[in-house]
Amino acid sequence: MSDLIAEKLNQAQALLPEFGIDAWMVFVRESSHCRDPVLPYLYEGSFTWQSALIVTAAGDRIAIVGQFDDGAVRATGHWTEVIPYVQSIRDPLVEVLTKLNPRRLALNFSVDDFAADGLTHGMYSLLLQYLTGTPYAERIVSSVDVVGAFRGRKTASELSRIEAAIATAETILEAAGRFARPGKTERELAHFIQQAATQHGVGLAWESPCPIVNSGPDSMIGHGTPTDQRLEPGHILHIDFGVQQNGYCSDLQRCWYIPRPEETQPPAAVARAFDAVVTGITKAAERLQPGVEGWQVDAVAREVLAETGFPEYGHALGHHVGRNAHDGGGILGPRWDRYGRTPYRKVETGNVFTLEPSLVDAGGAGCLGIEEMVVVTETGCRWLSHRQMVLPLLGTA
Amino acid sequence: MSDLIAEKLNQAQALLPEFGIDAWMVFVRESSHCRDPVLPYLYEGSFTWQSALIVTAAGDRIAIVGQFDDGAVRATGHWTEVIPYVQSIRDPLVEVLTKLNPRRLALNFSVDDFAADGLTHGMYSLLLQYLTGTPYAERIVSSVDVVGAFRGRKTASELSRIEAAIATAETILEAAGRFARPGKTERELAHFIQQAATQHGVGLAWESPCPIVNSGPDSMIGHGTPTDQRLEPGHILHIDFGVQQNGYCSDLQRCWYIPRPEETQPPAAVARAFDAVVTGITKAAERLQPGVEGWQVDAVAREVLAETGFPEYGHALGHHVGRNAHDGGGILGPRWDRYGRTPYRKVETGNVFTLEPSLVDAGGAGCLGIEEMVVVTETGCRWLSHRQMVLPLLGTA
Repeated sequence: MSDLIAEKLNQAQALLPEFGIDAWMVFVRESSHCRDPVLPYLYEGSFTWQSALIVTAAGDRIAIVGQFDDGAVRATGHWTEVIPYVQSIRDPLVEVLTKLNPRRLALNFSVDDFAADGLTHGMYSLLLQYLTGTPYAERIVSSVDVVGAFRGRKTASELSRIEAAIATAETILEAAGRFARPGKTERELAHFIQQAATQHGVGLAWESPCPIVNSGPDSMIGHGTPTDQRLEPGHILHIDFGVQQNGYCSDLQRCWYIPRPEETQPPAAVARAFDAVVTGITKAAERLQPGVEGWQVDAVAREVLAETGFPEYGHALGHHVGRNAHDGGGILGPRWDRYGRTPYRKVETGNVFTLEPSLVDAGGAGCLGIEEMVVVTETGCRWLSHRQMVLPLLGTA
Repeated sequence: MSDLIAEKLNQAQALLPEFGIDAWMVFVRESSHCRDPVLPYLYEGSFTWQSALIVTAAGDRIAIVGQFDDGAVRATGHWTEVIPYVQSIRDPLVEVLTKLNPRRLALNFSVDDFAADGLTHGMYSLLLQYLTGTPYAERIVSSVDVVGAFRGRKTASELSRIEAAIATAETILEAAGRFARPGKTERELAHFIQQAATQHGVGLAWESPCPIVNSGPDSMIGHGTPTDQRLEPGHILHIDFGVQQNGYCSDLQRCWYIPRPEETQPPAAVARAFDAVVTGITKAAERLQPGVEGWQVDAVAREVLAETGFPEYGHALGHHVGRNAHDGGGILGPRWDRYGRTPYRKVETGNVFTLEPSLVDAGGAGCLGIEEMVVVTETGCRWLSHRQMVLPLLGTA
């Protein structure tokens, strides 16, 4: 982990000039409860007292921390200066800023992007109090652009961790497909998957409910909890699942069809829905390349579904994946108010995205959603997951 | 868990009039990454899109959530109204506020108290945008007082969970005392304790490093990571540890002395330090009662150590414990800038506190810190932990 932190600190320093930022500061307290989503990139532990981690374009890496965190921060070797305090962070903080004298001081707040919005309103207000009488309050800017690039442009180490997390999730999803049989409940299947993650020594990619398991049209679609709903003939079984492995996540959706006694293939309506979703993914991937805005990629898949007569999906086509399953920066999503400015952000080389169109109900058989993962290359994108191109019949192997 | 949420929702409703609050709103997004420390009291899951949970003094409990969270929130049965949205939370949110028309709308931000400071600065700014043209932006107040009471005044169910978490931690600490022997390393001991927690089916009370293990004067005091430092004769072994069980935490410190070959009791300087710490706890507990301000309790223990010629401890005497090991509200701490207004908050019946004076180095043998837990009663306080009154010799049983 420590090498990765060094790698990302170097990347941060190199990125700052590109965005006209002289100093970038993470300002936190009790960080195991009020997390800044950026903190894990810079430090493995947590901070109790008010703490400031400052990276500058000039190469400074300064940590101002409570005295009881001094030893642990120093031991990382990542910081050019570690300044402990006892009664108040105010004086050392103002002194450091005065010495650095940044023209633009970036802080982690953003109306649009949660992953660049780790500064609480109380901590922001506290900082303004501390900076009274200095010129620095007026030099504060949002870090949203630099954090978007920092999180979004994956280093080689980050990409290989994500690939490992995908491989593990795929293995578990295959096992889940063998375990699933008509008569089992969503809850039993979810439990099987969670046990498998434990056996692989990995965490779940997001908080409860992970996995999401839906069988049939009466299941709780969306972020609903797996229930005692049984897998029954005529249902689509849909699983949304990912793992967190070595600090990085995967996020995949897979579907199966549970045939009725007389069926040897999915009903035509289900097959058509599956084809539309798969085609939506294919066409969107063809559009995905550096420089395109996220909403333009989303629009491709949205149009494929509209053309085949299916309703619009009520979410984004895809999101970044990294340390978080839903990672920040831009989104491959529609220009809805709830996404703010994020659909307008340009796609960049090294971005890792999901592609996940869905249909809430495919031919009365339930939710049909497929989610793949890709990395953006200089000329397009490359598949990271092994694509689901066939809708298997469950329980007939 | 659900019954506890109902219990706390009822408590919240009853508390609001006491603080002149008409409506209290938790406003979050991607809450598994940007947590509001209050959210777990109201909802077991997490929210992806912007979501508002509103509790009013009049008894409304309204959840406005993204459509994919609608089913899960509705299934809890805790909300009188669940309003799903697709493109933007703005309209339903403004409609609900207009209908409720609160004179004072409390939000979770606080300069002083992290546990009432879950609203990010970006989400605060987003809300101000949404409330443009309404009277509600001007009616926003901090929820710090009501959240302090809400978290601090433990219900019977909460107290029994905390007591269970204390019992488990005490059992594990006793086992650690039997496992610890000269020659073992801090790291081995920490691993033993973590394994024991797993075997008990409980979590750790805080993020890494939990436990904190210090042996001797060269150990990394404070929030430092356990190292390959070996337990050696002449060392104090100090462990700071707690578990999270059924959503609630314990937080205890225990010490042992590792005798040199010829020693049959701790050196006089170590014994004196131990007595001073224990006396500090006793005297502070005698002062702890409803109505006293936190700094007054801290001052008692600080004075005991000063009188016996030991240096001042560089932290607070004690903190709340609840869902978090360091829980919010007031603190039994000195009036240092870093604690803001929290030392001035009055102690209340039902508060659960630690009492934990410490000495960074006791007679050259290392850190000596004892941490007990108490609950405040109408007339004083009651011990929740079994007090450590003797400094045992390690490895001689």
